[in-house]
Amino acid sequence: MKLLLINPNTSSPMTHAIAQGAKAVAAPTTEIVAVQPSFGPLSIEGHYDEAFAAAGVAEQLRLAQESGANPAPDAVVIACFGDPGLEAAREITRAPVLGIAEAGFHAASMLATGFSVVTTMTRTCIIAERLVQRYGFEHQCRGVHGTDIAVLDLEDAGSTVIDQIEQTAREALSRDRSGAIVLGCAGMTTLCQTLTERLGVPVIDGVAVAVKFAEALAALGLGTSKHGDYATPLPKVYTGWASPFGWPKR
Amino acid sequence: MKLLLINPNTSSPMTHAIAQGAKAVAAPTTEIVAVQPSFGPLSIEGHYDEAFAAAGVAEQLRLAQESGANPAPDAVVIACFGDPGLEAAREITRAPVLGIAEAGFHAASMLATGFSVVTTMTRTCIIAERLVQRYGFEHQCRGVHGTDIAVLDLEDAGSTVIDQIEQTAREALSRDRSGAIVLGCAGMTTLCQTLTERLGVPVIDGVAVAVKFAEALAALGLGTSKHGDYATPLPKVYTGWASPFGWPKR
Amino acid sequence: MKLLLINPNTSSPMTHAIAQGAKAVAAPTTEIVAVQPSFGPLSIEGHYDEAFAAAGVAEQLRLAQESGANPAPDAVVIACFGDPGLEAAREITRAPVLGIAEAGFHAASMLATGFSVVTTMTRTCIIAERLVQRYGFEHQCRGVHGTDIAVLDLEDAGSTVIDQIEQTAREALSRDRSGAIVLGCAGMTTLCQTLTERLGVPVIDGVAVAVKFAEALAALGLGTSKHGDYATPLPKVYTGWASPFGWPKR
Amino acid sequence: MKLLLINPNTSSPMTHAIAQGAKAVAAPTTEIVAVQPSFGPLSIEGHYDEAFAAAGVAEQLRLAQESGANPAPDAVVIACFGDPGLEAAREITRAPVLGIAEAGFHAASMLATGFSVVTTMTRTCIIAERLVQRYGFEHQCRGVHGTDIAVLDLEDAGSTVIDQIEQTAREALSRDRSGAIVLGCAGMTTLCQTLTERLGVPVIDGVAVAVKFAEALAALGLGTSKHGDYATPLPKVYTGWASPFGWPKR
Amino acid sequence: MKLLLINPNTSSPMTHAIAQGAKAVAAPTTEIVAVQPSFGPLSIEGHYDEAFAAAGVAEQLRLAQESGANPAPDAVVIACFGDPGLEAAREITRAPVLGIAEAGFHAASMLATGFSVVTTMTRTCIIAERLVQRYGFEHQCRGVHGTDIAVLDLEDAGSTVIDQIEQTAREALSRDRSGAIVLGCAGMTTLCQTLTERLGVPVIDGVAVAVKFAEALAALGLGTSKHGDYATPLPKVYTGWASPFGWPKR
Amino acid sequence: MKLLLINPNTSSPMTHAIAQGAKAVAAPTTEIVAVQPSFGPLSIEGHYDEAFAAAGVAEQLRLAQESGANPAPDAVVIACFGDPGLEAAREITRAPVLGIAEAGFHAASMLATGFSVVTTMTRTCIIAERLVQRYGFEHQCRGVHGTDIAVLDLEDAGSTVIDQIEQTAREALSRDRSGAIVLGCAGMTTLCQTLTERLGVPVIDGVAVAVKFAEALAALGLGTSKHGDYATPLPKVYTGWASPFGWPKR
Repeated sequence: MKLLLINPNTSSPMTHAIAQGAKAVAAPTTEIVAVQPSFGPLSIEGHYDEAFAAAGVAEQLRLAQESGANPAPDAVVIACFGDPGLEAAREITRAPVLGIAEAGFHAASMLATGFSVVTTMTRTCIIAERLVQRYGFEHQCRGVHGTDIAVLDLEDAGSTVIDQIEQTAREALSRDRSGAIVLGCAGMTTLCQTLTERLGVPVIDGVAVAVKFAEALAALGLGTSKHGDYATPLPKVYTGWASPFGWPKR
Repeated sequence: MKLLLINPNTSSPMTHAIAQGAKAVAAPTTEIVAVQPSFGPLSIEGHYDEAFAAAGVAEQLRLAQESGANPAPDAVVIACFGDPGLEAAREITRAPVLGIAEAGFHAASMLATGFSVVTTMTRTCIIAERLVQRYGFEHQCRGVHGTDIAVLDLEDAGSTVIDQIEQTAREALSRDRSGAIVLGCAGMTTLCQTLTERLGVPVIDGVAVAVKFAEALAALGLGTSKHGDYATPLPKVYTGWASPFGWPKR
Repeated sequence: MKLLLINPNTSSPMTHAIAQGAKAVAAPTTEIVAVQPSFGPLSIEGHYDEAFAAAGVAEQLRLAQESGANPAPDAVVIACFGDPGLEAAREITRAPVLGIAEAGFHAASMLATGFSVVTTMTRTCIIAERLVQRYGFEHQCRGVHGTDIAVLDLEDAGSTVIDQIEQTAREALSRDRSGAIVLGCAGMTTLCQTLTERLGVPVIDGVAVAVKFAEALAALGLGTSKHGDYATPLPKVYTGWASPFGWPKR
Repeated sequence: MKLLLINPNTSSPMTHAIAQGAKAVAAPTTEIVAVQPSFGPLSIEGHYDEAFAAAGVAEQLRLAQESGANPAPDAVVIACFGDPGLEAAREITRAPVLGIAEAGFHAASMLATGFSVVTTMTRTCIIAERLVQRYGFEHQCRGVHGTDIAVLDLEDAGSTVIDQIEQTAREALSRDRSGAIVLGCAGMTTLCQTLTERLGVPVIDGVAVAVKFAEALAALGLGTSKHGDYATPLPKVYTGWASPFGWPKR
Repeated sequence: MKLLLINPNTSSPMTHAIAQGAKAVAAPTTEIVAVQPSFGPLSIEGHYDEAFAAAGVAEQLRLAQESGANPAPDAVVIACFGDPGLEAAREITRAPVLGIAEAGFHAASMLATGFSVVTTMTRTCIIAERLVQRYGFEHQCRGVHGTDIAVLDLEDAGSTVIDQIEQTAREALSRDRSGAIVLGCAGMTTLCQTLTERLGVPVIDGVAVAVKFAEALAALGLGTSKHGDYATPLPKVYTGWASPFGWPKR
Repeated sequence: MKLLLINPNTSSPMTHAIAQGAKAVAAPTTEIVAVQPSFGPLSIEGHYDEAFAAAGVAEQLRLAQESGANPAPDAVVIACFGDPGLEAAREITRAPVLGIAEAGFHAASMLATGFSVVTTMTRTCIIAERLVQRYGFEHQCRGVHGTDIAVLDLEDAGSTVIDQIEQTAREALSRDRSGAIVLGCAGMTTLCQTLTERLGVPVIDGVAVAVKFAEALAALGLGTSKHGDYATPLPKVYTGWASPFGWPKR
């Protein structure tokens, strides 16, 4: 199967790192195709960045669907913890689409009665908290904690960064009475193994679980419902740079 | 005061119509400046359309903020019922920013114990329902009802369209036991007066209340908090067509 | 327009102070008529006080509606943070009626993702918390904090009182991760300016926003729905001192 | 023990009828003392009526507490389905205080997974729905249904009235998938027996369960907490007709 | 009346202690019949223990219902704070069935605006928290606190144990701003009196209130609804040791 | 990997059918070991049946963990839509444990904005509704619908049964405005394919998704957290038939 892994920001090193993480857990039969938008922020640390990133996710999935040559993806993963463009993506494909925050929350709730999220900038906690509410995990998610580490500083995360995240996670486990940690940024993929060993509780990397859940759904032939809310967009004219992304009359 | 009225879609007739509606209710001292994105969908009828529209809202507010010549807006209204780009907009201005769905819900909850929303395509009800949940109006909003009238068909709404909306509104008032109707599309602005006369209950046009609430907040010197979640974006490089929209180091 | 400003307690100095605050923000065309009940508590600091105050609000609005000479009010504001008699008032007028807690919560949720309330006696926090739940602001209101300053001590609030409120507000902003402060008592109106300068975040005086929101709704011709739950009371005999407040057969 | 039964409206026949109902279920050792306010509405069918009734409840409990001669009540029941003045009453006594809506909801949730409320005027459904939310019974209460029978028409309820209530109850049981009916008005006390026989499910009269629960709590020496939110009111001057109801300095 | 008191664990000393507590508060006309399962855990301190205990509760009630000689119980109380087997029990009897957690929460919410639970092992807090959610007391229950005292250590609770519970309760009252304490284990029955005297707030023993509420409901002829969700089980074959507990065809 | 598939009821044909369904979707490297309790109900159609089934699930997992010969399972699936014994099972293993209701809800919420559940006896709807609340899917699950088909009648489901389920599903999709159907009984596994073809929306068989999700979690080395709420049970003596299931001192 072909799994389209969309990194919503425009940092090639991060796209590469996320792709490595995805390939490390994907089934041998799964081809990971990692892409990033042709425009937008180098990292996503707020609502403003997300507005551009969501459009970038739509752009990339649209291109992957259209490209006559390649087959369309069998599954899609959006690798940014704010799940930007998740709903938009679901409208334009029959494949299952998973966001990594969503996948991380689902997985954590299967492993512990309560979990805590450890993320980057404190100002982005509100984004995760809104998703927790939207998805219905308010009873399971007992806390969202910022470390105020910048996303791009995760790319070459030294021991200090890891120690800082470990420290925040330990405090969260005890203060929140949580049993698992969800890593609140795709850029933390590379730290999952180390943190798991250090913390002794399930540490969940949304990228990894999103890939496995997407494989699971695709294997069962389950995809995004085209009945109702996620039906294919209505025919529509788009203008400006986005004109290629309109929807033709059928 | 200068009120920036952003129509998130790219239909100039609709931008014009909304501007007329806004000017009709604005205070004499309020200058309404109506804009629309330089790109994106002609109308917004789903999540995919919204993803582009949100970026368009960010683009327009950013341009309005930057343009050295003009003064920055004293208040901002986003005139699409999905409130696309609302959070993004709040990050990049100190002015108050209101979405018309948000404003409509707030107003309705001040006038009746329960209200119903009458909108366009049924497939977009989920967008309004999510906002209702997000903003906390689940006890006041007793129903969201689609008419399956296309947004652009509202531009020259004939009597059939009005009758259809009236009919849906009447059914909603009785089935939902509601006391007020919130119009679920900026394109319905022009129908508000007629529907009010016909229905005999408060019929709320989000554009009108958003304009008045924005004037109210601005008059009190109240604006978007820059403390915490809505703080100005972090310095960041943007790429591709969006490169002008990055945030310089300070 | 004529705006009836009802102070639910019987402290004339407070009625005067609140009226001053309202006049300072009202539009030139708005006539502020400030009244207080003919009976009841000098200040409202609990459920027992509120029970009498709510009846007092009903008394005053009824008198203002009836008085043949004067025109009936075009808008009504109830200036006590518990919003006593709000529902009762809405039944007996077609004008919009706003409580200051309600107005403060609505305004704060338009300016920040989360706000905190700073009020007087800790024992009254439960009243604000119940309103937060009733109105649907449980996700936006991140904390209600008592200062244990008596309401009447606000009348001639010295620097100690202000410092104490500022201190509580600072702690709330950081502990609650809030972006705005809602002042939890009409008696704090006079402190709003100072606290805004000191705190550097939006500080919301419910009286001011209630006046502006009431003006906004009235300007649009929007009033309390008479369809259903807020319909005019049924004809009814009242006895005792309340006999003038019954409702005649029509 | 002495149980103060307060009928918040001023209909002596209803006070008498409710007292009969209470005495019929009270323990032999329980003395039922039934009172009604010295002022206010003959029946309670909306928020406006309730505002006066709540003050009337406070008046009567205060008088019962003060009257040196008689001992203070050991328990208090407020016999109107809107539970007017419940919180106020709790502040001024150490005895347990129960509202009949509250008691009815608690009892129903112990007997069935879901219950429906059948009440009088449809316009009062909102009052019961608000209490359901306030008390936390939103998952158990599956519907609140109005019969549009006036409260005073229950006093000499003929077979038509009973048939109408039975019919509404039957529809509620099936449409709401409920297992029990809560009667939504103290005036329905006299119909409970008949409806129980006809419907074959638990039919709950709030007056009866409130009396028994109050006896239960009093028997265990449990009363309203004076720690925090329900502490005795602060010393305060009251004015006008309410001046006797202020609270002296201690 | 005959009240079946089921201790879901298999500790005879605890069954005896609970029975003593129940008899101390029961009406003279109430016969307390205390039983315990023929199998299962000596104490219940987790989900695994509860799974066996719930079956044990079903076993004991079934035996009590069947035993031709004795009359069936008029009311049932399940004396373990997790309310194990509560739903199962309700299916197989027409008598009212009360769990002690349920009864404790209901009672506390009648006496204070907020209460705190003090229980045994911290690992069991999640069980109480789930019940709080299930029953709808999330606004009233402001905290569930573990003492990490083992259930069986309560049997001969020395002063250290009592002091520890008192200390946890005091902290809860202040940190949670609560007005009452609910004891989170049937084994704490014997400590209720002492803690009440020491804390000066209502301290609620679920066993005592469950007994009194059960008496109250039974006295009114109210029992578990057999309409719908709690209807008598369908005829069914059971196998293995449970074969006597199947349900014969009728 | 070894996946323990526990059928909580004692119907061998159903255990066989479920095992077939699981094997049909499992990875080649996954060994499905299907078991059923040594005691209890032939089918689970209510709370009483569930009480025995939960203990049966605990029995079987305990046996599978203990049996020195075989390796312990790498993942566990509980194949009854009420998820009986789910929490108990998580306490006694480090492997991931999934219930089929839980898995079905998670999967559905990844594929549609809203889903409906179609189950067997209407009386069991409450069980699914409680799980929906417990797991946090109240916004996604738009309806739970009974067909009143007995569980055992699914074993040799003729066309009538399928037609009936299809009919209920069609009505649910339209009335609930849902985009996916979750089959509310493990016995419906065999009907999933047919219903998918007929309905044209995702039809989710909890057994299949639970198997794939369990494989996904196990593949990532993720298992039930032993930190806190799901920690291994405390040492404890069990009595009667359950004595082998106590927990030895370590």
